[in-house]
Amino acid sequence: MPSNIVTITSDFGLKDPYVAEMKAIILSLSPDVAIVDITHEIEKFNIKNGAFTLLSVVPYFPKGTIHLAVVDPGVGTARRAILIKTTEGFLVGPDNGLLILAAERQRIISVYEITNPQFMRSSVSRTFHGRDIFAPVAAYLANGVQANNFGQEIDDFVKLEITKVNVTESSIVAEVLHVDGYGNVITNVSENDIAPLHLGDYIGLKLSGCYLKMKFGKTYAEAKPKEAFALIGSHGFLELALNQGNAAETFQIKTGENVKLSFSIKK
Amino acid sequence: MPSNIVTITSDFGLKDPYVAEMKAIILSLSPDVAIVDITHEIEKFNIKNGAFTLLSVVPYFPKGTIHLAVVDPGVGTARRAILIKTTEGFLVGPDNGLLILAAERQRIISVYEITNPQFMRSSVSRTFHGRDIFAPVAAYLANGVQANNFGQEIDDFVKLEITKVNVTESSIVAEVLHVDGYGNVITNVSENDIAPLHLGDYIGLKLSGCYLKMKFGKTYAEAKPKEAFALIGSHGFLELALNQGNAAETFQIKTGENVKLSFSIKK
Amino acid sequence: MPSNIVTITSDFGLKDPYVAEMKAIILSLSPDVAIVDITHEIEKFNIKNGAFTLLSVVPYFPKGTIHLAVVDPGVGTARRAILIKTTEGFLVGPDNGLLILAAERQRIISVYEITNPQFMRSSVSRTFHGRDIFAPVAAYLANGVQANNFGQEIDDFVKLEITKVNVTESSIVAEVLHVDGYGNVITNVSENDIAPLHLGDYIGLKLSGCYLKMKFGKTYAEAKPKEAFALIGSHGFLELALNQGNAAETFQIKTGENVKLSFSIKK
Repeated sequence: MPSNIVTITSDFGLKDPYVAEMKAIILSLSPDVAIVDITHEIEKFNIKNGAFTLLSVVPYFPKGTIHLAVVDPGVGTARRAILIKTTEGFLVGPDNGLLILAAERQRIISVYEITNPQFMRSSVSRTFHGRDIFAPVAAYLANGVQANNFGQEIDDFVKLEITKVNVTESSIVAEVLHVDGYGNVITNVSENDIAPLHLGDYIGLKLSGCYLKMKFGKTYAEAKPKEAFALIGSHGFLELALNQGNAAETFQIKTGENVKLSFSIKK
Repeated sequence: MPSNIVTITSDFGLKDPYVAEMKAIILSLSPDVAIVDITHEIEKFNIKNGAFTLLSVVPYFPKGTIHLAVVDPGVGTARRAILIKTTEGFLVGPDNGLLILAAERQRIISVYEITNPQFMRSSVSRTFHGRDIFAPVAAYLANGVQANNFGQEIDDFVKLEITKVNVTESSIVAEVLHVDGYGNVITNVSENDIAPLHLGDYIGLKLSGCYLKMKFGKTYAEAKPKEAFALIGSHGFLELALNQGNAAETFQIKTGENVKLSFSIKK
Repeated sequence: MPSNIVTITSDFGLKDPYVAEMKAIILSLSPDVAIVDITHEIEKFNIKNGAFTLLSVVPYFPKGTIHLAVVDPGVGTARRAILIKTTEGFLVGPDNGLLILAAERQRIISVYEITNPQFMRSSVSRTFHGRDIFAPVAAYLANGVQANNFGQEIDDFVKLEITKVNVTESSIVAEVLHVDGYGNVITNVSENDIAPLHLGDYIGLKLSGCYLKMKFGKTYAEAKPKEAFALIGSHGFLELALNQGNAAETFQIKTGENVKLSFSIKK
């Protein structure tokens, strides 16, 4: 059932030895695993940012992939370590909501609290469960250990709330899920949310005091250089972009903020 | 003929899920492939910067390596997707010049426009051909699908122009191909360009209004700390450097700019 | 004896082709090797920073792992290239102290100067021994070539000095080994250094003119957000931290500096 792929997502950055230490533990226990880095540049301590990244990426991996994720401000406290078995694979990480959006997208079969010390490093530090708990659990999963061997099933795991898309007759209030490296602003408005609206060719973006009329297009290159526009991006969410420019910096929009979009309806 | 190595070069950066999504597609279709990241920090939209990086790196990979590259401001427009078969391996990416310097260095056998939907993802987004076209094509190539199955051969692919090195009796006008992470300024002047000149021990660099006399050396450590000097770097191009310092920042030189170098001839 | 894992540590950064060129050479010579990046963001030319990172990471890798490291301001000069065989594996890199802390932690069996051109690239550049010497040596080691084939055994290799922890009745002078991506300040004070002291619940940090009382805790989350505190981190060293904040920036502490800590003893 498990594939031999383990992915790792974290807010550890790339200058420290932390990520390599997790890989060392995984390869020590399961030498034939293929490790794929999702990113280690999740905004530090930003669980929602990590959850969105996982949500985006899981659909593209083969069945049985094991996703290990660590954005873990509560490490060392009473927050639990969990393992989620879904219809598509496994997710391993802290019980703080980080794994939930991706797990729900895949459909959750069961959630286990990781408590069995047999599958942890013999000495568990209080500050680095990525290396001492999550990495060995991922490796043992890859080796075929059944999910229910790691601990008891639970159903009171921590959920994650994303602002519901609020659509009125002429406006949408959306939450910014992610600002990507190009400065594209990815909102929680999905293709399905706006399909019934029969949007016109323009979307309005209300910024502090002013109003920006944006073309509603299909590709970045459709707009003139430095022209603002909106489109449905490659993950199926509404994005605000600036062709060959940085929309988030220009309009000063950040992850987690709400944006108000107005629209006209096609006649 | 194809090795099991697929390299990836892009301007995607490392904080977003984009690179991992490409890897997920490749591993889904061709699980035994070894993926090597060249870099994902190509200057955004800078095709020439990507082309230079590919040019530098391809000679070191084994025969049959498949190089996937994405610096793609025109994604979603009429720009074509191409696959180049060379005497040494394969290159896959947008038809915007990105692949050409590396392909010419390896010697082009044939260039194909990628049009066969059988080797693309079933739903191709308008903004992310790296994931939806180039990644599956690279995977199918690794699986042994012949290059001519992906589409028609073409010969009007987009070329890339680099300023020709302009050598006069006492000066060279060179283009800056790349500024590396140390701030070393790598020009398009090759060892072969200057070998016939019998350069003296110094090179002059003309900067806005002033003139810098640089030692022409063989290693970074030859110069005193913070001393400017020139040398033939590890890719065979003339580099301007500052020992243990950042030449590009200090002299305010950027990728794509021209620099004028004067020299004295050894007697 | 060698495992099939080669790790790479460098100050090359990730935007240039340098790291990929090393990987290309390794995979050309030893196609089944698993390459693990430790980090390529070692502070440029900072040998001590690289040495600390290697020291941290080596204990987690399986027996026989080959660690290649390049922080090499003296490349191209008379500084030697070395290969260290330890009880746990191998280290390959410049003879400038970079490998020594990790090698000593593992226990050195013998140190060899790399001189045999048979195991180098046929043309060795003067500026990139990572690609032309260290990478092929690592690959040949992985292929089972015995360590004494690469050159003569030496015993006058370069050592590295870290300030000895200086403990008086009520204070410690410590050296900052590393500032991690969270801004945590990792000192050279080990758990063993302070265990005999029976520290009280607070540690004092003397900064230019002022004095900061820090809780001495066990996890980051124990402190209030933005509260300063000290703890023994996941590598067994005393760290100064700011819960969900950046201690190094706030207190302006840098790698390589000394910090003076005062303490009260538990009664």
